[in-house]
Amino acid sequence: MYTIAVDAMGGDRAPKEIVAGAVTASGEGIAKVILVGDENKIKQVFEQEKLEPKNYDILHAEEYITMDENPTAALKNKKDSSMVKAAQLVKDGKADGMVSAGNTGALMQAALFILGRIEGIKRPAIITFWPNVKGVSMMLDSGANADCKPEYLLQFAQMGSIYAEKILGVKNPKVGILNIGSEPMKGNELVKETYSLLKESNLNFVGNTEMRSFFLGDVDIGVCDGFVGNMILKTSEAVAEYLEKTLKAEVKKSFTAILGALLLKPSIMKIRKHLDHAERGGAPLLGVKGVCIKSHGRANARTIYNAVKIAAKASENKIIECMESMNK
Amino acid sequence: MYTIAVDAMGGDRAPKEIVAGAVTASGEGIAKVILVGDENKIKQVFEQEKLEPKNYDILHAEEYITMDENPTAALKNKKDSSMVKAAQLVKDGKADGMVSAGNTGALMQAALFILGRIEGIKRPAIITFWPNVKGVSMMLDSGANADCKPEYLLQFAQMGSIYAEKILGVKNPKVGILNIGSEPMKGNELVKETYSLLKESNLNFVGNTEMRSFFLGDVDIGVCDGFVGNMILKTSEAVAEYLEKTLKAEVKKSFTAILGALLLKPSIMKIRKHLDHAERGGAPLLGVKGVCIKSHGRANARTIYNAVKIAAKASENKIIECMESMNK
Repeated sequence: MYTIAVDAMGGDRAPKEIVAGAVTASGEGIAKVILVGDENKIKQVFEQEKLEPKNYDILHAEEYITMDENPTAALKNKKDSSMVKAAQLVKDGKADGMVSAGNTGALMQAALFILGRIEGIKRPAIITFWPNVKGVSMMLDSGANADCKPEYLLQFAQMGSIYAEKILGVKNPKVGILNIGSEPMKGNELVKETYSLLKESNLNFVGNTEMRSFFLGDVDIGVCDGFVGNMILKTSEAVAEYLEKTLKAEVKKSFTAILGALLLKPSIMKIRKHLDHAERGGAPLLGVKGVCIKSHGRANARTIYNAVKIAAKASENKIIECMESMNK
Repeated sequence: MYTIAVDAMGGDRAPKEIVAGAVTASGEGIAKVILVGDENKIKQVFEQEKLEPKNYDILHAEEYITMDENPTAALKNKKDSSMVKAAQLVKDGKADGMVSAGNTGALMQAALFILGRIEGIKRPAIITFWPNVKGVSMMLDSGANADCKPEYLLQFAQMGSIYAEKILGVKNPKVGILNIGSEPMKGNELVKETYSLLKESNLNFVGNTEMRSFFLGDVDIGVCDGFVGNMILKTSEAVAEYLEKTLKAEVKKSFTAILGALLLKPSIMKIRKHLDHAERGGAPLLGVKGVCIKSHGRANARTIYNAVKIAAKASENKIIECMESMNK
């Protein structure tokens, strides 16, 4: 069984949801988990939630990094924080991977400075998974690097292709540049230069991809800089939320609409489950020397349960070794 | 009555929908329209659609610019195109404004080279309107400038503020930078530098705005570079389309769901109308010396009808004069 270190104090709903999700996974034998955080608080969650944890350990951490802390300062000043200690467990080989729903910037820094970059990788990137009509596509970078160079995007495409092949079993994965138009000359300087690099690469590059086509599953991997990727992510969430809110408000106005909504509810719940980030668990941070899964800040128990599953699978599939061989 | 030149050949559904929308507006006395395009084809639409146009003129144009043509080449080689001739009418004072649903890049170039930039304006920008729970917010730039400098974004904020005040009647409009986080240090280099500029400006700058908060209507104006803006636009459309498609597929699977969907249909249609780009007509291109409205490539008659309305209102409100006084 693989061992996954879980930052029990990271995320808006920590420690309750984090601890609950982690020990559900360990209880099912998905992985052994090491809960890193305030021991008293973790044990309180056990009691309050009437959990009967199995296959677990607790590593006490005196402090934790908050969601809005400056990442660099946090890493420097909070060496005994749950996130830093979880990363250290991976670094020391005491855990095969880690999961955190905490401060993204801080996690990036912890991964970079504690686990370290894989040789030859210029910038690590966060992968997110996107359900579509055909299955699932990946987007990277989803927020690790706000400013990028074309070479970074080329590497994101390479890392994404390896992940798609080795972990998801996609043969010859299709790579597209997420862009505002499909013609080769479209976009800003960054994507235009990336286009040339990808065209010369040995990847299965299919050109520029508009968001509509991305949601139709026309590519397996969409690459973009981390600012754009994070905007796409947040825009998608905001639109879905807005539509739901507007529909709810509209439905309230009419009795037949309320009845209609009730009859539709099972279908809506299925779609919601299909789209829910909790079902996807988290976003792997690729390019660092250790399995590191970033869960959504609003992660609940189910998110963490799935994140532990992803971490265990990535460990099993030797994802780090695969990335290391990329530039050889 | 103001006179609006309409590029009858621009857009996926030209000339039929364009002509129909334009003459509906002119028939209602919203503006006099000059239909610029292939005279025979325009008259064919009159016949086929049994239109009885009033308050209109036709200006024959031998050719037109296609949707995927290279903008620079198109402008150079197609001087007799409908889009170029429409812009020329505005330039020559024969029309008060123009509307086109054609090639965005080409329209930008036509506006820049025929109408010309307003003195002091570094880059023109496209405004889009976003319905939200409180009313409507504006986003700019929505796609005119793929690469931007902080000074451009400052001017977008200034132009947006003027438009909000003078055309929409919003007092002291709130300006936010569309960003991946709300803290001052978040984002890429461009938005960080823009933050400092906006903070020093005399605009009502409220800081960084996440998409969620933008959709809640927390700001009147969201500024961003044209690449990011266009990605936000396309992502929003793609998400809404994807959700609709997924819901339809899910509903088909169950009889109660079909019944529910039927009962909900009026509510959904209301929301769709609320969100439909056709209802918003088009996006004003600000910063050029002439009223120029870009309608969606998929514009239908209703879109063009509303675009003519916006163009007439912008003419009436002396939007160009307002922009000209911005840097004085």
